[in-house]
Amino acid sequence: MLDREHVGDQSPQAISFDRLWDSLGAAAEIGRWRSCGVQRLALTDADRRMRDTFCAWCRDAGLHVRVDRIGNIFARRQGAAELAPVMIGSHLDSQVAGGRFDGALGVLAGLEILRSLDDRGIETRRPVEVVSWSNEEGARFSPPMLGASVFTGALPLERALAAPDGDGATFGTELARIGYAGAAPVPGAPPAAYFELHIEQDDVLHRRGLELGIVTGAFTAHAAVLRLRGATAHSGATPMRRRRDAVAGAAEICCGLDRLTGAHGSDARATTTRLTVWPNRPGIVAGEAVLSIDYRHPTTAGAEAMRRDVDELVRDACDRHGLECERLGDWSFGDRVTFDPELANLVRRNARLLGVQTTDMTSSAGHDAYLLAGVSPTAILFTPCVDGITHNEHEDVDPERIAPAVDVLARAVVDAADGEVRGD
Amino acid sequence: MLDREHVGDQSPQAISFDRLWDSLGAAAEIGRWRSCGVQRLALTDADRRMRDTFCAWCRDAGLHVRVDRIGNIFARRQGAAELAPVMIGSHLDSQVAGGRFDGALGVLAGLEILRSLDDRGIETRRPVEVVSWSNEEGARFSPPMLGASVFTGALPLERALAAPDGDGATFGTELARIGYAGAAPVPGAPPAAYFELHIEQDDVLHRRGLELGIVTGAFTAHAAVLRLRGATAHSGATPMRRRRDAVAGAAEICCGLDRLTGAHGSDARATTTRLTVWPNRPGIVAGEAVLSIDYRHPTTAGAEAMRRDVDELVRDACDRHGLECERLGDWSFGDRVTFDPELANLVRRNARLLGVQTTDMTSSAGHDAYLLAGVSPTAILFTPCVDGITHNEHEDVDPERIAPAVDVLARAVVDAADGEVRGD
Repeated sequence: MLDREHVGDQSPQAISFDRLWDSLGAAAEIGRWRSCGVQRLALTDADRRMRDTFCAWCRDAGLHVRVDRIGNIFARRQGAAELAPVMIGSHLDSQVAGGRFDGALGVLAGLEILRSLDDRGIETRRPVEVVSWSNEEGARFSPPMLGASVFTGALPLERALAAPDGDGATFGTELARIGYAGAAPVPGAPPAAYFELHIEQDDVLHRRGLELGIVTGAFTAHAAVLRLRGATAHSGATPMRRRRDAVAGAAEICCGLDRLTGAHGSDARATTTRLTVWPNRPGIVAGEAVLSIDYRHPTTAGAEAMRRDVDELVRDACDRHGLECERLGDWSFGDRVTFDPELANLVRRNARLLGVQTTDMTSSAGHDAYLLAGVSPTAILFTPCVDGITHNEHEDVDPERIAPAVDVLARAVVDAADGEVRGD
Repeated sequence: MLDREHVGDQSPQAISFDRLWDSLGAAAEIGRWRSCGVQRLALTDADRRMRDTFCAWCRDAGLHVRVDRIGNIFARRQGAAELAPVMIGSHLDSQVAGGRFDGALGVLAGLEILRSLDDRGIETRRPVEVVSWSNEEGARFSPPMLGASVFTGALPLERALAAPDGDGATFGTELARIGYAGAAPVPGAPPAAYFELHIEQDDVLHRRGLELGIVTGAFTAHAAVLRLRGATAHSGATPMRRRRDAVAGAAEICCGLDRLTGAHGSDARATTTRLTVWPNRPGIVAGEAVLSIDYRHPTTAGAEAMRRDVDELVRDACDRHGLECERLGDWSFGDRVTFDPELANLVRRNARLLGVQTTDMTSSAGHDAYLLAGVSPTAILFTPCVDGITHNEHEDVDPERIAPAVDVLARAVVDAADGEVRGD
């Protein structure tokens, strides 16, 4: 399929899907968790083993590997000209209860495309690089998409290196420990174009029987970490009216989040992802609770309206329970992220040539591509995942339903690398 | 005041309140925590130091110290006859965020009364013992009142020794580690009478300007540990309708508990004391939550009505969020506990002699005396605590307002030890 003389060829077997599938299987063994999941938190030993394996695969494929100062790994296939590369990337870290495809599919599909270009002896004008971004998930170090944020200049290196893991380590010490504090400077030079292939993580493609979603917009997401302080008391002897119960206040926020999404349309989402209670012992009313909340809306205005409701909810809950609220941190993403219409058209054109039906989609999850979109023409391609299950060990894909998107991506990358992008 | 020839003497200085106050101050330094609290969890090094100090004080006072197989410490002053002793006791362990008087007051007041008997050369017919019960708080090992439960035969020794602390240790291994796995058999021989002096832990005496509450009844308390299982999912990509969010379900239970107390009268209490969430990471809907709840009512029927409401609340929350609920454990106490009317009268009579006004009270907190009440005539005396603050480092007492109760207790103990109890 990468034979550009035969653009009419519609076989999805043009790239070696079997080899990609084998790579995905081998990656799934690294940090394997429970029946079929992975637990490969950023900068853990499992992440190191995955990085080592990925680098070895890249070198075996004749690619030139470099690592930047925040641990992003780039593997380059030279082009005919010394131009900014076309990049294909995603991430190899996972959640605590992660699936095999979230992130890994995008990185290993990128690698497979470069292998296939070699197999077929195809030369491109621009270099093509596959990249694995550090700490996309944010499950161990905050914020998420940390590596891409530093690469694109959205987050200063020093702040990223200082990010704590909550157990006394920092991103910087752990990055050095696993041997991935590289020399390549950050922020890095923006690529001519950036492509990311990712499982959809919702069930729209799965239900509609489609194989390719083209992301044309992003949900706006807001997140905050709140510390609520009340006062410990005896759970038996203290009347309800005299309490300043931090867990009761946190629960009220959590229930309120669950409820208020209804007022913002069926696409609104709000979650209490973390809740830690102190002293968390029988017989004692909690004196402190730290909770992480996130809420998302397909529109900027909708997210702003949610923010007002959430702020009011937090204020009311704290007032009612006599709690002090301290905002320990927050992050937002997705707001005003725009993907490149020309790159999207290039994907659509190749999909049409291969007879792959597409649909435009809005991404509700954050992706490294959101950061790249701020510095380069960027496209995200979604493939279906079974029942939309993700961030869960039962995350799964039907291989036959992801192969078409990999083929479309391969063609779009070659087109982009041969100059059909605005870059330079 | 212990000079029984002068029963009309109403000075509260008959026992050495200064010495008791000094002992309380010295004890407060052991496991001192924050400005003026204590953190002396059962069987920790702080608990060991407190036990060592208490035993040394008892031996200095010429008392015979014995330790039973569950670590309860008894210090005996011989009587004229070989009869069952009168016991005065409470506990020296604390909550994580504990106060200086909760438990320690009762134990050290008991010791001071024995010291005063010696100072005044008073001989009693029965022996008098001061006892410090193991693990009253239940903050580290469940159930609470564990030592008193084993002493009275309500809990088998083996089950108590196997109680885990959640960090890999058991009660038995920790008891041996601190050197308090004694030889005295359990269950132990019931005393002829048991007295416990304790801070009230609510603010009734404080507000009403009274110095002595006589406990005539107990709240019924029910507690349960629930594990809710849902499914992890992406906090951004997963629509609300497809979630099985364990923390949302737990929060609904917590809010419901807070709300339903109102329907059961102003004395009803319900609390979520513990809430632990998994995986507790940003970006991921919680797959599991473990929560400990307790709820209490002054009447058995009221507690039973609360239990029905709580069971329905848990069922509804789990149904709504698609969660499985597993009951990991539960405990109850207080139901049908009765204190001895004759012993209460003996306390009242002595209070009257000393001009101390009393009020009858219902105890909402659990106490070691609840267990003793099942095997011996038992009385609990409450003293005021400032603003009813307890299980909090700011727990405090006005020394002048606790001295009268100690005097009354001293007299009642001597009366009981001279035969005015039903025992034998």
